[in-house]
Amino acid sequence: MNEMLNNLSATSIVEKIASGETTAEAVTRACFDRIAAREDAVKAWAHLAPEHACVQARQRDQTRGSGPLRGVPVGIKDIIDTADLPCEFGSPIYAGHRPATDAACVALLRAAGAVIPGKTVTTEFATVHPGKTRHPEAADRTPGGSSSGSAAAVADRMVPVALGTQTMGSVIRPAAYCGVVGYKPSFGLINRAGIKPQAESIDTVGVIARSVDDAALVAAVLMGAAPAALAGTARRPPRIALYRGPDWSKAQRSAEDALDRAAQRFAAAGATIEDAGTPAILREALDAHFKIVCYELARAYAFEWETRRELLSEELRGLLKLGHGVAWEDYVAAQNIGDAARQWIADSFTRRDLWLTVSAPGEAPVGMATGDPVLNRLWSLLHLPVVTLPAGRGPAGMPLGVQLIGACRQDADFIRMTRWAEAVLAR
Amino acid sequence: MNEMLNNLSATSIVEKIASGETTAEAVTRACFDRIAAREDAVKAWAHLAPEHACVQARQRDQTRGSGPLRGVPVGIKDIIDTADLPCEFGSPIYAGHRPATDAACVALLRAAGAVIPGKTVTTEFATVHPGKTRHPEAADRTPGGSSSGSAAAVADRMVPVALGTQTMGSVIRPAAYCGVVGYKPSFGLINRAGIKPQAESIDTVGVIARSVDDAALVAAVLMGAAPAALAGTARRPPRIALYRGPDWSKAQRSAEDALDRAAQRFAAAGATIEDAGTPAILREALDAHFKIVCYELARAYAFEWETRRELLSEELRGLLKLGHGVAWEDYVAAQNIGDAARQWIADSFTRRDLWLTVSAPGEAPVGMATGDPVLNRLWSLLHLPVVTLPAGRGPAGMPLGVQLIGACRQDADFIRMTRWAEAVLAR
Repeated sequence: MNEMLNNLSATSIVEKIASGETTAEAVTRACFDRIAAREDAVKAWAHLAPEHACVQARQRDQTRGSGPLRGVPVGIKDIIDTADLPCEFGSPIYAGHRPATDAACVALLRAAGAVIPGKTVTTEFATVHPGKTRHPEAADRTPGGSSSGSAAAVADRMVPVALGTQTMGSVIRPAAYCGVVGYKPSFGLINRAGIKPQAESIDTVGVIARSVDDAALVAAVLMGAAPAALAGTARRPPRIALYRGPDWSKAQRSAEDALDRAAQRFAAAGATIEDAGTPAILREALDAHFKIVCYELARAYAFEWETRRELLSEELRGLLKLGHGVAWEDYVAAQNIGDAARQWIADSFTRRDLWLTVSAPGEAPVGMATGDPVLNRLWSLLHLPVVTLPAGRGPAGMPLGVQLIGACRQDADFIRMTRWAEAVLAR
Repeated sequence: MNEMLNNLSATSIVEKIASGETTAEAVTRACFDRIAAREDAVKAWAHLAPEHACVQARQRDQTRGSGPLRGVPVGIKDIIDTADLPCEFGSPIYAGHRPATDAACVALLRAAGAVIPGKTVTTEFATVHPGKTRHPEAADRTPGGSSSGSAAAVADRMVPVALGTQTMGSVIRPAAYCGVVGYKPSFGLINRAGIKPQAESIDTVGVIARSVDDAALVAAVLMGAAPAALAGTARRPPRIALYRGPDWSKAQRSAEDALDRAAQRFAAAGATIEDAGTPAILREALDAHFKIVCYELARAYAFEWETRRELLSEELRGLLKLGHGVAWEDYVAAQNIGDAARQWIADSFTRRDLWLTVSAPGEAPVGMATGDPVLNRLWSLLHLPVVTLPAGRGPAGMPLGVQLIGACRQDADFIRMTRWAEAVLAR
């Protein structure tokens, strides 16, 4: 029986524990059984704490009460502080590091009744140098990054949900590669206290899950919204802007096909689809994003650069060097372009409900490099809520995903529209 | 001779060390001599490391090179991580806490040649519960907060410059109370990695100094700008919007007089002064600010709230309770008001160069409560650069200040205008 509990959604776990049909401890043990069976192949975890997690689970079982995540195991990306588990940020600099506190998001999850089984693998400092995680369906492929372990653990049914963070495309891309749902809320809606920053004007906490319901349940807790605030499905089909953008040449045929198929199914279900073209301001914004990320990374990692440079990967040293090469005036100009682009896209939502594009240039590539975030970076800069939904498979049989993008801070309406889209694609 | 070196500006220290007229060690020892003489009365420091600082200073002296802050002692507010000194955040929860790393801003200061003599007193978590610091000119008065120790140490000539942070009015108000210069740059221009967050959509690192030159020198290093980017004085007198705002009834007669005097002197020097009235959107923004701060505080301190509540002050527990009482929908609405107000004020800068108001409702009050940030909060929400300049004294003989506010991320032009204003007020 334990083997099946790990397949449950977070929503079901909460219901079944509340009704007495199962216990938090049984769910946690089932997740650890799955992890024991699969971790050697998937390598999703930087740290695991089975005994400690079972103690937490028993406490949840003994506590009457109705935390909205009571008994739900949630994987935590190892860029997020935990007081009772190591936090190594995917870097040898922090081998054995133990933070003094839980990050705000972890404390909020625990207060809501969640159980933390361990820390999931991140790329080095949530940037580009890969960790050890393999794609759950193909050991020779990347699960994507930087939230590599979170996406792989959820896809492999080790946990129902896990936290990620996104600066380039680090929630959406790995979720899409692994065939699950990723939700990056609007910038600022999930508190980042206790999370190692990359580019602080862009970094956003996200949730990886196997359904929009589960992602919304966890996100509501983290945002401080009532679960009902994000409940329900949009009643009318959305007006959708179809976006390919200036780097569409990097999208493979399988991604193009996935986008066309999704657009056709949305249209058949009543959505209006309009081609958005490639507005010049969005092209500029994409360039601005990279300057901003490199500039802010170079400041955020000043301590590591000055004192532990030899322990940084070649890739990260390269990014930091790029950041040191961006002039302050150019950084300020890039931030101003970001503001203008956010204003422009906010106006666009008076005529549209959603933007739609693919979540990655194709299937998860062979090798451990985490794939190209080129189709994700724009939405990160724009601070918009994004959900990736599974959208078929490519020629190698690997998952593909499409991204839906909503208006800033209208996450409640946005989530209702993504439920509509999820139902249409599941038909 | 040592006793005089502590009076030097940061700019002079850099010059005199470069020319061989003095050494970093002599400057550091002079600052510690002043601290030894005055700390019992002022209580500006949470931690002092004289021996360790002298070692740093000797290293600066031995290193040829031209770091823009070579040999400058910089006080660090104790809300900012330091790897070689304790960091207690003004809270008993963190007694003896030692972070694993330097905050980004500290690493950048060290890389520029600064010497860190110790950590300055902050109110509890940079919020409202006061620390031990007294006003340097009156032991029965507050130095203001939350950057209490930084303002007092700079005013008392223990260090030429110190870092603060502002969410409500925590750089500008204490600087004004203590009769020195405070500079809160535009939001986002100084990296916050390694600083304990309060309200992450507003928190801004600032510099407290005894001149605009010194504040700009340190800020340029932290922002990654060339020192020359913030150099020079505006050539033409600015167009100034005079602002009193919806809470002007809280301004005392002495503050009104200081504002009138400053406006008259700016006008006499060629500035155009226009009364800005009280636009409705700025009134709404002020309400939005408080909701946002409380909401974000309640999330940022989720760990302390859940696990160490009894060690939080009554005042902070009250703020966190207020934060828990703000509905998510109201928080989102408040953020939307903030966006609209930022857009509105950005447009206003097409017709104006500066806004002008007072820095606090009056002189530093008697007692240790840190004074009212009511005249600072708006500009914090609006993400605008703010400088407070000394502007005479009140009936008790204590300092008064006026705030100049510039356009977002136009800090280079803004600093040049504040140099113009500083020169006019010094005549």
